[in-house]
Amino acid sequence: MRIGELSRRTGVSVPTIKFYVREGLLPAGELTSPNQASYGEAHVRRLRLIRALLDVGGLSVAGIREVLVAIDDSERPLHMVLGEAANRVVPRYERGDGSGIAEARKRVAELIRARGWHTYEGNLAAEALATAIAALDDLGHGRFVEVLDAYADAAERVAQVDLEYVAHQVAREGLVESVVVGTVIGDAVFAAMRRIAHVEESGRVFGETT
Amino acid sequence: MRIGELSRRTGVSVPTIKFYVREGLLPAGELTSPNQASYGEAHVRRLRLIRALLDVGGLSVAGIREVLVAIDDSERPLHMVLGEAANRVVPRYERGDGSGIAEARKRVAELIRARGWHTYEGNLAAEALATAIAALDDLGHGRFVEVLDAYADAAERVAQVDLEYVAHQVAREGLVESVVVGTVIGDAVFAAMRRIAHVEESGRVFGETT
Repeated sequence: MRIGELSRRTGVSVPTIKFYVREGLLPAGELTSPNQASYGEAHVRRLRLIRALLDVGGLSVAGIREVLVAIDDSERPLHMVLGEAANRVVPRYERGDGSGIAEARKRVAELIRARGWHTYEGNLAAEALATAIAALDDLGHGRFVEVLDAYADAAERVAQVDLEYVAHQVAREGLVESVVVGTVIGDAVFAAMRRIAHVEESGRVFGETT
Repeated sequence: MRIGELSRRTGVSVPTIKFYVREGLLPAGELTSPNQASYGEAHVRRLRLIRALLDVGGLSVAGIREVLVAIDDSERPLHMVLGEAANRVVPRYERGDGSGIAEARKRVAELIRARGWHTYEGNLAAEALATAIAALDDLGHGRFVEVLDAYADAAERVAQVDLEYVAHQVAREGLVESVVVGTVIGDAVFAAMRRIAHVEESGRVFGETT
């Protein structure tokens, strides 16, 4: 199809499509004449993925590029690609002043050991968890760690259904894409659900349902 | 204390503190002479809250201002302030092309009814959930809705411990601050936990623990 149809099918404007091609997010179309390129279904799917990562996931253009590089690198073994793709969509927090981070890292290591979880060197999620715990400590909410086990129970349950969903994909690209989409949009789904559940619990605890 | 000490105590540079005062995020210090202002413990606490919302929560300066306005408005009844504060820290997604949003809103309304949850007009979390579901649909991951109940179970469990934690606060400001901090940082905590649990589940499902 031509770029105009690609634009109509995806709701992404022609200048934006050209921008994505220049930025290396979207492969160029196949040249059919010196001034015209042809695009296929792979472009439609890739564009939708880019928009979802941008609009729903809130990733930067640079972040999206990293995720796509992991998806497209056919040399890497599947489980490494899945891990890397998931790791790249971990929000990168700026470090605080570092006061409580060492203590928080120890707490995270203890939690992982206590639950019998396996993890790997450089798992950014463990670091992100330590950063969040250190921030809670800085804010005088150090007692929040008492509820971490309930969070971990809930996270295990959600991860289980996530993987059941992902495992139904057959092709490598579909599998990696599911992990990326499920990781990013799953955050949004859970965050929204948690807020709706807060209203419910708040009504129960403070007795002010309307 | 003087601005230099405030900077040392919080790890926030003097120019950044002045920027926050100009932007209305931090109340000005009390003038003790034409060129010197004095700051108190309330400034320390407020600065830490701003940094946590910025570094961990990823909120914009405008978003932080909205949250602080809700905290500081003493006229509003408590439950409304809690609801508004929580609502303001919902990530605002850009709308997609709107194709599947009406269908997704119906699904969210059904889910809320089926679970017997109460909600209120203009709950941004319900809209955020519909946006995420519509995005999944656009990406060909419409089957993901089958796992929404497991997400809702997990969200209820987390919301319960969140509210238990928050209910221990006594003062209004502490209560609202706990809701804001717990909502934003709780997202980060859960997202990190979910990723660590993914590694665990992935090893189980794909048999590649190392």
